[in-house]
Amino acid sequence: MKLMVVGGAGYIGSHTVRQLLGAGHEVVVFDNLSSGHAQALPAGVPLVQADLLDPAAVKTALETHQPDAVVHFAALIEVGESMRAPARYYRNNVVGSLNLLQAIVETRKIPLVFSSTAAVYGTTDAVPIPEDAPLHPESVYGETKLMTERMIHAFHVAHGLPYVILRYFNVCGAAPDGTIGEDHPNKTHLIELACLTALGQREKMMIFGDDYPTPDGTCIRDYIHVLDLADAHVLAVEALAGGKQDAGTYNVGLGHGFSVLQVLDAVDEVTGRPLNREIAPRRPGDPPRLVADAHRIVEELGFAPRFTDLKEIVQTAWNWHRTHPHGFEE
Amino acid sequence: MKLMVVGGAGYIGSHTVRQLLGAGHEVVVFDNLSSGHAQALPAGVPLVQADLLDPAAVKTALETHQPDAVVHFAALIEVGESMRAPARYYRNNVVGSLNLLQAIVETRKIPLVFSSTAAVYGTTDAVPIPEDAPLHPESVYGETKLMTERMIHAFHVAHGLPYVILRYFNVCGAAPDGTIGEDHPNKTHLIELACLTALGQREKMMIFGDDYPTPDGTCIRDYIHVLDLADAHVLAVEALAGGKQDAGTYNVGLGHGFSVLQVLDAVDEVTGRPLNREIAPRRPGDPPRLVADAHRIVEELGFAPRFTDLKEIVQTAWNWHRTHPHGFEE
Repeated sequence: MKLMVVGGAGYIGSHTVRQLLGAGHEVVVFDNLSSGHAQALPAGVPLVQADLLDPAAVKTALETHQPDAVVHFAALIEVGESMRAPARYYRNNVVGSLNLLQAIVETRKIPLVFSSTAAVYGTTDAVPIPEDAPLHPESVYGETKLMTERMIHAFHVAHGLPYVILRYFNVCGAAPDGTIGEDHPNKTHLIELACLTALGQREKMMIFGDDYPTPDGTCIRDYIHVLDLADAHVLAVEALAGGKQDAGTYNVGLGHGFSVLQVLDAVDEVTGRPLNREIAPRRPGDPPRLVADAHRIVEELGFAPRFTDLKEIVQTAWNWHRTHPHGFEE
Repeated sequence: MKLMVVGGAGYIGSHTVRQLLGAGHEVVVFDNLSSGHAQALPAGVPLVQADLLDPAAVKTALETHQPDAVVHFAALIEVGESMRAPARYYRNNVVGSLNLLQAIVETRKIPLVFSSTAAVYGTTDAVPIPEDAPLHPESVYGETKLMTERMIHAFHVAHGLPYVILRYFNVCGAAPDGTIGEDHPNKTHLIELACLTALGQREKMMIFGDDYPTPDGTCIRDYIHVLDLADAHVLAVEALAGGKQDAGTYNVGLGHGFSVLQVLDAVDEVTGRPLNREIAPRRPGDPPRLVADAHRIVEELGFAPRFTDLKEIVQTAWNWHRTHPHGFEE
């Protein structure tokens, strides 16, 4: 199959490009490189450097490259920034996705796999969270993802567009060979922050709340390795192409979580450089536990994550950060 | 005050323009006339014929006319069509509103009154429906309204944009003098359909379900007269301008409803031409009762609807349709 990967030069996109190639598929990447990195793409993968906000460019790319399916990662992803600059987020994430959807139904009506997020659930007491939990995103970022989910579903109902929506929990790790990994303009992810702190780029690790109702008092999150997540996309594309699925929404997580302290302990062990830690007050909107009910994707798409050992997960992140302390920009 | 009324040439918009003028305000209308009628505007009201999908036109209009607040009605409003052509609805209603919001915060940061709908609640068992009921729109139309509500709120949080959102129940009636009224490309509203049937333009009135758990077996809806609704907008604009309100969402309805049979009986009485009626099966998604809990707008904005008598409501609609059997196109 030939896949167009929109946002394919980003963190999850570039790992998915690799896994798609590894599974024998052909790939073309569409990315505006606003936060992605051309260096993250394997040699020989065509890159269309263009923007979803340019509807003509999207249509031309689909007509020129004639993909069999589209995998759509392109989005602005910073929760805090989304609250300060909502117009940018609604326009990039919602209008951009609308342009893509419209171009797809107007040209090839091929299946779509879309990157969504556990942020669509908002704060919830459900542990673990099933896909049919109430959807109450608490940030503009989460809202733009939910709006796009709803648009995709409406295009399915109106035009028969086949789709899979994947709702990611805490994505982490990197390709074990250390060649590609996480490199966002702003760092907000725990394992990445811890690795950069171990490298001396930051003074200490803040622990926001140690008085949660969890075994060690710190928050528990469901950490899913980026390569496992990438494989979920391969499974989704293949299920759509094989007609096994025509409209499905799946959580992607391990189905169990690790606490902040467990993660920091693992980073200490892997790096051999114990982190300075500081306990700070809880942050508003941080629920004690966010864990996926991941049964559906296991049962329906045969998802079988390989990275379930926390130290192994951290090791892959460390391989990347240790060898690329400043990311792709060396 | 000077108000820019976006979509001011439409059914509700044009009645609101009248009430705003009557309350001593100045008005400029922004409308693309895709479904509005320039004839619905009083002489002397400036009309900017332009589209919300043209961001430069929106900004220019705000800069040229320097309004103190914006009242935003512009939208595609047909539920059935929205399911068949979602892209058109998302683009017109959501992207159009985003352009308007962005133009407002980039130019004058003036208050906004937005037309929303009871369709944001979807099917619900709550009778009456309070504003904090769960929001589960069941059509693309309802979704576009909810998305716009969320965007407006995000602009309030990020940029301090003051707003009032009004969620309409079943709008009906016309200016009692018979000079303006309802004239949509497709007719779907009960009282309008009944009047046109009484005029012989349709053969009969279908009653979809007479076995609902209501006193006479037919569905009950909350009918709010278009002039009362227009007054709600005047109250909202004045509350925002006076600093009495900076972010509020209100149902607009009478707080009690009439059944389909009650409405048809009233039309028979007013017109003196008994309608042919036919009982048909229930339509999917039609709940037995949809009635507003309208306490909030009564208490907070002093809303006091004058048209509470069903025959009087129907009489105003009949005055319009009888004298304009083909709407504005004579």
